[in-house]
Amino acid sequence: QSTVTISGTFDPSYSHVKTTTAGGVKTTATTLANSQQGTSAIIFRGTEDLGGGLKVNFLYEANFDATEGGGTAGTQANNLTAGQVFLGLQGNFGNVQLGRANSHTLSAQAGRTPFGTKVGGGYGSTSGTANTRLNDSIKYTSPSFSGFTVGFTHGLKDTQTAGEGWNEVGAFYSAGPLAAGLTFVRQSNTIAQTNLYGQYDFGAAKLFAGYHTEDNKLGLANSKKKGYNLAVSAPMGAVTLMANYGKLDVDGGTAGDRKVTAVGAKYDLSKRTSAYARLVNDKINGGNKVNTTLIGLQHNF
Amino acid sequence: QSTVTISGTFDPSYSHVKTTTAGGVKTTATTLANSQQGTSAIIFRGTEDLGGGLKVNFLYEANFDATEGGGTAGTQANNLTAGQVFLGLQGNFGNVQLGRANSHTLSAQAGRTPFGTKVGGGYGSTSGTANTRLNDSIKYTSPSFSGFTVGFTHGLKDTQTAGEGWNEVGAFYSAGPLAAGLTFVRQSNTIAQTNLYGQYDFGAAKLFAGYHTEDNKLGLANSKKKGYNLAVSAPMGAVTLMANYGKLDVDGGTAGDRKVTAVGAKYDLSKRTSAYARLVNDKINGGNKVNTTLIGLQHNF
Amino acid sequence: QSTVTISGTFDPSYSHVKTTTAGGVKTTATTLANSQQGTSAIIFRGTEDLGGGLKVNFLYEANFDATEGGGTAGTQANNLTAGQVFLGLQGNFGNVQLGRANSHTLSAQAGRTPFGTKVGGGYGSTSGTANTRLNDSIKYTSPSFSGFTVGFTHGLKDTQTAGEGWNEVGAFYSAGPLAAGLTFVRQSNTIAQTNLYGQYDFGAAKLFAGYHTEDNKLGLANSKKKGYNLAVSAPMGAVTLMANYGKLDVDGGTAGDRKVTAVGAKYDLSKRTSAYARLVNDKINGGNKVNTTLIGLQHNF
Repeated sequence: QSTVTISGTFDPSYSHVKTTTAGGVKTTATTLANSQQGTSAIIFRGTEDLGGGLKVNFLYEANFDATEGGGTAGTQANNLTAGQVFLGLQGNFGNVQLGRANSHTLSAQAGRTPFGTKVGGGYGSTSGTANTRLNDSIKYTSPSFSGFTVGFTHGLKDTQTAGEGWNEVGAFYSAGPLAAGLTFVRQSNTIAQTNLYGQYDFGAAKLFAGYHTEDNKLGLANSKKKGYNLAVSAPMGAVTLMANYGKLDVDGGTAGDRKVTAVGAKYDLSKRTSAYARLVNDKINGGNKVNTTLIGLQHNF
Repeated sequence: QSTVTISGTFDPSYSHVKTTTAGGVKTTATTLANSQQGTSAIIFRGTEDLGGGLKVNFLYEANFDATEGGGTAGTQANNLTAGQVFLGLQGNFGNVQLGRANSHTLSAQAGRTPFGTKVGGGYGSTSGTANTRLNDSIKYTSPSFSGFTVGFTHGLKDTQTAGEGWNEVGAFYSAGPLAAGLTFVRQSNTIAQTNLYGQYDFGAAKLFAGYHTEDNKLGLANSKKKGYNLAVSAPMGAVTLMANYGKLDVDGGTAGDRKVTAVGAKYDLSKRTSAYARLVNDKINGGNKVNTTLIGLQHNF
Repeated sequence: QSTVTISGTFDPSYSHVKTTTAGGVKTTATTLANSQQGTSAIIFRGTEDLGGGLKVNFLYEANFDATEGGGTAGTQANNLTAGQVFLGLQGNFGNVQLGRANSHTLSAQAGRTPFGTKVGGGYGSTSGTANTRLNDSIKYTSPSFSGFTVGFTHGLKDTQTAGEGWNEVGAFYSAGPLAAGLTFVRQSNTIAQTNLYGQYDFGAAKLFAGYHTEDNKLGLANSKKKGYNLAVSAPMGAVTLMANYGKLDVDGGTAGDRKVTAVGAKYDLSKRTSAYARLVNDKINGGNKVNTTLIGLQHNF
């Protein structure tokens, strides 16, 4: 009996990035980029039925750069890095995951656009500070009650690293064409963030919207930010078209305000393999304007 | 034909540690701890029958922290680290393992208590300096003669690292309710260590005892230490209760003497999954007293 | 349906190395060496048929040291490092690999001797600067036309590392007893290299020959080197005997000229397991003379 399943993703892309500084200086970089639609990884996972409705499940996600060895050219540097890692207990009470599972906030932030956490979605920029996952955390997700789930994550404070020990709560709804979510995150003395998203599938197209507020230094001047976005995806046979417009407002003027505009297309070569293209414009008031053009290939195994 | 088998372990626990210094200063840390009953790892192993009674066997143990990514919060640092790694040849002559197989001394030190190498067993403290495994080593284990096996490990000196190149010999007996072992380790100019353990299974309970001596600086003042311990485990259905008392004596007075007292319980949720709890008191004369309370979950796949 | 295949290699050896400096000072090192006939690695690979003659294929090679943990003795340092990593598209047009596939030049350089890239073959020394593989590269290999294939690799320039961005073209022939290849590599301002090899299998023995020229600083004094080699392998039942003689000439005198002489034997214990022995003499004019004696065991899973 096999007790572990191995799956994964390769996602290299041809990437052209043009950066224009506030002073008008232009630079370009053309390279192979990694993980621009999916996340290159080898994932070990499994589940065991303990009886009485109780299950234990585990996942280890070893991320890698599909285009590099992680070090200088020709050398063989370390390349496998830890993504999600957890051991979970699932039952009628819900699902408790110990370790570093993806946060509820990740779900809310990634749910704002069809680009998820990847380029064009404004993840970590117009959608607010990314709170992807947390070391030493206990994540709880309730069962679904008529489409509603609630959850929280409690991060324990390990002595060795700053930024640990945040807490979040979230509530999600998913039924028929509608999906929505709301999360609150709090790191003492560093960040308080509220995230909201909604999706509605009209069939011909799916609409996405997101909104967030955050206070990064908890009350200091210009420490508050808020952002919103509107996005759409439209499946047309093997092709899916998608677009996103996101805006970030920094308190106290226009400096640091940010705008992301993105269009993309995904072409399914099979259920497990797709080619994709993206055009992304990311502009910071008083800062850089970055234009990214991508053609990529994602394979899931 | 599958020629590799993948197995492994996830072992996160909820850990509360209270430390009291010699001066009476108390600090506490509450976090998720890793590998406190088992060792979180993904293991690749296999064996090939070469005919004529000869087999080749291999093992690669990639250890990981089930509760962290290995780096700062939210980052994706390297997490897979090498545990046991060896290629072995097995035949009528015994088993020769090249690489970094677990040492015979590990078997003797871990055999002293039901806690093995984990917290409460005094591994690396009251059971003496840990000699877990050794790079660039050749390990030999004889076949079993009426329950007796003997073995040695010869560590070759690689230029780049100190502490390499130790040697050990060991003898073990295992038959019916009785198991026992004796090993000698020698690292030139750094350590000479003798390890002894015995186990006897009375059915209702299994008794463990251990004894060791070591000379850490080979003849300098106060360089000698010795330690002993007594331990027990008692299976009661799905629950196993266990306890250990270990004592380390440093030559020349009482400074540095150490005492470990531990009680624990393991509850088998299935053959592959268990919940556990441990209370451990570890006290160094003139040094810290550390009280550890653990509740953990171990899953093997 | 399984979509990933896991294979790999363990290759530890007992190695004795005697080094004599130009001044006559002798030092010796005896240790376990790694990857001296094969490359110790765990490899994840797979292929998907996309229909219409199109296939997607992937490979992730996690190399490791079969004799060490990668760090100091007894510690558990990172050990898995990235070897080949690519996602490829294969069709009537040939094979395009994105990432860091083994270069065409590697094929030409390794094809010069039965020792391939390993000790005794002069890989990276008498066979010229090694150009094993390249980050952020696009490698193309044509289909075989009556035994002929052509190919190129274009390395994109990533900003963070020097030495990136080289380009190569290659042509290969393989039919019946004959195999040959020719490649040109160019890294702007650093290296221009031409590699040539041929093999002919007479049945009782296979002959190998290689030749290369390179200019390491593109026109500066004494920046040019060239090398040639002759080698042979002879299968005799389960045993294969092999030998190589390689010579490197540095422009402008005899300083730095290098000679490699190697003999070896491989004994097949099975289709997947072999024992081997090698004697290698590597001498640099005005530099070190290194004598290597190896006895190793390679197992493929």
